[in-house]
Amino acid sequence: MRQRLVVVGGDAAGMSAASQARRGRGPDELEIVAFERGAATSYSACGIPYWIGGVVEDRESLIARHPEEFRERQDIDARIHHEVVAIDTTSRTVTVRDLVAGRERDESYDQLLIATGATPLRPPIPGIDAEGVLGVQTLDDGERVLAELQERQPRTAVVIGAGYIGLEMAEAMIQRGLEVHVVTRDACPMATVDADIGERIAAAMRGMGIHLHLGAEVESIRTDAQGRVEAVVTADGDLACDLAVLGTGARPFSDLGAEAGLPVGTSGGLVVDRRMRTPVEDVWAAGDCVETFHRVSQRPVAIALGTIANKQGRVAGINLGGGYATFPGVLGTAVTKVCGLEIARTGLGESEAHEAGFDPVTTVVESSTRAGYYPGAGRITMKVIAERDTARLLGAQVVGDEGAAKRIDVFAVALWNGMAVDDLLNVDLSYAPPFSPVWDPVLIAARKATQAVEAARG
Amino acid sequence: MRQRLVVVGGDAAGMSAASQARRGRGPDELEIVAFERGAATSYSACGIPYWIGGVVEDRESLIARHPEEFRERQDIDARIHHEVVAIDTTSRTVTVRDLVAGRERDESYDQLLIATGATPLRPPIPGIDAEGVLGVQTLDDGERVLAELQERQPRTAVVIGAGYIGLEMAEAMIQRGLEVHVVTRDACPMATVDADIGERIAAAMRGMGIHLHLGAEVESIRTDAQGRVEAVVTADGDLACDLAVLGTGARPFSDLGAEAGLPVGTSGGLVVDRRMRTPVEDVWAAGDCVETFHRVSQRPVAIALGTIANKQGRVAGINLGGGYATFPGVLGTAVTKVCGLEIARTGLGESEAHEAGFDPVTTVVESSTRAGYYPGAGRITMKVIAERDTARLLGAQVVGDEGAAKRIDVFAVALWNGMAVDDLLNVDLSYAPPFSPVWDPVLIAARKATQAVEAARG
Repeated sequence: MRQRLVVVGGDAAGMSAASQARRGRGPDELEIVAFERGAATSYSACGIPYWIGGVVEDRESLIARHPEEFRERQDIDARIHHEVVAIDTTSRTVTVRDLVAGRERDESYDQLLIATGATPLRPPIPGIDAEGVLGVQTLDDGERVLAELQERQPRTAVVIGAGYIGLEMAEAMIQRGLEVHVVTRDACPMATVDADIGERIAAAMRGMGIHLHLGAEVESIRTDAQGRVEAVVTADGDLACDLAVLGTGARPFSDLGAEAGLPVGTSGGLVVDRRMRTPVEDVWAAGDCVETFHRVSQRPVAIALGTIANKQGRVAGINLGGGYATFPGVLGTAVTKVCGLEIARTGLGESEAHEAGFDPVTTVVESSTRAGYYPGAGRITMKVIAERDTARLLGAQVVGDEGAAKRIDVFAVALWNGMAVDDLLNVDLSYAPPFSPVWDPVLIAARKATQAVEAARG
Repeated sequence: MRQRLVVVGGDAAGMSAASQARRGRGPDELEIVAFERGAATSYSACGIPYWIGGVVEDRESLIARHPEEFRERQDIDARIHHEVVAIDTTSRTVTVRDLVAGRERDESYDQLLIATGATPLRPPIPGIDAEGVLGVQTLDDGERVLAELQERQPRTAVVIGAGYIGLEMAEAMIQRGLEVHVVTRDACPMATVDADIGERIAAAMRGMGIHLHLGAEVESIRTDAQGRVEAVVTADGDLACDLAVLGTGARPFSDLGAEAGLPVGTSGGLVVDRRMRTPVEDVWAAGDCVETFHRVSQRPVAIALGTIANKQGRVAGINLGGGYATFPGVLGTAVTKVCGLEIARTGLGESEAHEAGFDPVTTVVESSTRAGYYPGAGRITMKVIAERDTARLLGAQVVGDEGAAKRIDVFAVALWNGMAVDDLLNVDLSYAPPFSPVWDPVLIAARKATQAVEAARG
């Protein structure tokens, strides 16, 4: 009997799952319908700051695949401007609002995949909804920022938040020729790395001419007579601006699932098992809206990141297509850059390691991206966190010049396999002068971490 | 009682070992003397092609540490222009020739480390010793090539051999403005990668204007009346040139140890145990002159590479300093570039996997170094070799634009840990548009390899 799969959310997790399910089951076996409330399927939200900064040419480049392509190539019925507003797991129906026609109707499902993504955090402060205060979550948000840049020729922008999106938007605004202020309540930019690495990022950002306001809580948005932002008001003082950008992070948009009675975990994400099933029969969830397993802390985490959403969508889709796959968890790997500075992390930071109950030993090592004598050798700082008693790698952080950040992947694979730093230091990594010093920075860091662990054991 | 450590060979392995031994045992416990027949200690042989090409400014930059520094900082007596010509393991002495004074004397040891490196292979053809036929193994070799370039203003160079050194010398000669011919008996450049990857390298090299002569055995060197090279004679015809460069590889220089009765393995390198001990008491060996264990094929191999020599020197030095360390083997990882083309490999190639007795399934995948829409996204081709029955990764090869080659390290760590490709595809690698597509090329390759293995199992 032909079954019907309904996918709620037409971006990374949802459409990966739909495509993968189709590979397992043809149109005779499985009807696939995907509802997306926005104007596009399968777009790269991560690319929006680069589009705003003018590095990526147009909106279209950020769209990996259109609804028509899903229909024609895979017989997947992807409907944009369709919002699922309620789920009834008893009658196995979803209520869908056609945002263009303004109508609602119920649609039945045999299998349901919730892939509703994340929703940006908007600090609950007076004036947050003023004109000229802009988010950068969706393609439409991106259009809005670009329109403001073109029509108003702003000269000063305040970026609220100094996480990945905050930093990427600071870079974008600099590329657009604006004076840029970044304000955060945290003591350092990039709260996802440890403070000692954050301080290096702060110094580099100031060197780029970015005005950095650290430990500064935003109290309100001050507006002019027309209701438009004219300053971001902080405990530290008012930051006059023509534009304010919200880079304050996101939380799992688990609300729709929660309202249908699905359990939400401590991280705020929907609870799923290894195959991406919720506890309710035939209801699955994947992507930014779920919580997942952190392989080092062994705790649930919610991480909004396209690469994880794609992998989880693949796993859900294989299972929905009649196959078998499990999602093995995450390491919290992430990478970003702000102008010439590359930043990356994986596993646990020093403070996270303590929180998770580990006894960590940390090492910070400076080295070089290429042989010291080879032109273009850049600086690279690596922090390694290892467990005192076992020398097991717990995490790593990298900050440096071009060629620095992607080296985090070596640590990621080592972490994935539970390697100790004294094993890692011997790994046969590639070497030639244009690519690394004879001891690759990762190996130098592992060697120093080994010495630090030995010294700490006394 | 104070012991005496004699080190034979003052480059990567020898001086790493000496330094490390000194950390374990101070000058009161251990006297350390190192004999080096050349003019420099601890220099980067791998950097010589870049110095010749003018990318690296001078000879001095390639020297990591001078004898004076070893003496002053670590009380290590490093003597250049001193060649050990014989070892007597019964009387525990070495015969040392002072190459400047022309004298020989015996020196006693309590512990001996043989780190005599590799010696270039010189094809036994008529004219090989003619003027203008140059090797690039030592700093003095480099000086000689540079002198020829300056004094003779050659217009055409023939590089004999298309391995790492051959390719790097081809790049160097192009950078010096010469017309470059590369001749090799192999069907493809880079015999250390599989033919399908080699063909891509050949095409790219021809695109750079390099004249590539494949499957062409060199028969002789034709000289002029003054005994200077005027052509490289091959079965394919004569290649007229002003300069010929030998890039025909190297073999372990195990001769000195062998003459002293130490066993030599099938690879041509001295046989050592996990701690870098030869079977003769108190005689150790490390670096290019030894044979080591390949972790995937589980066979002995001899690989002349600074990064391995440094690691082995460290292990020998820890043991000589009273500590405990073992060398865990190699993966055969290597990286190089020829102009804009990056090339890397790790583990076993397809043919090597067959030779080692595996039943391999291979996959070749094209992808992109960055998100497709991000400027500067380069092409990258990855070949993955996996075991049919277990999906275990056996090896990988990469060829591509800038940012491609260093990704081999991710495969190297995966190989080190014996990962299967269906586990590797889920690893939480870093992603942001300037750094990779949302599925990193390594993950795409692992995913396709997983599909290939499943298909091959039928």
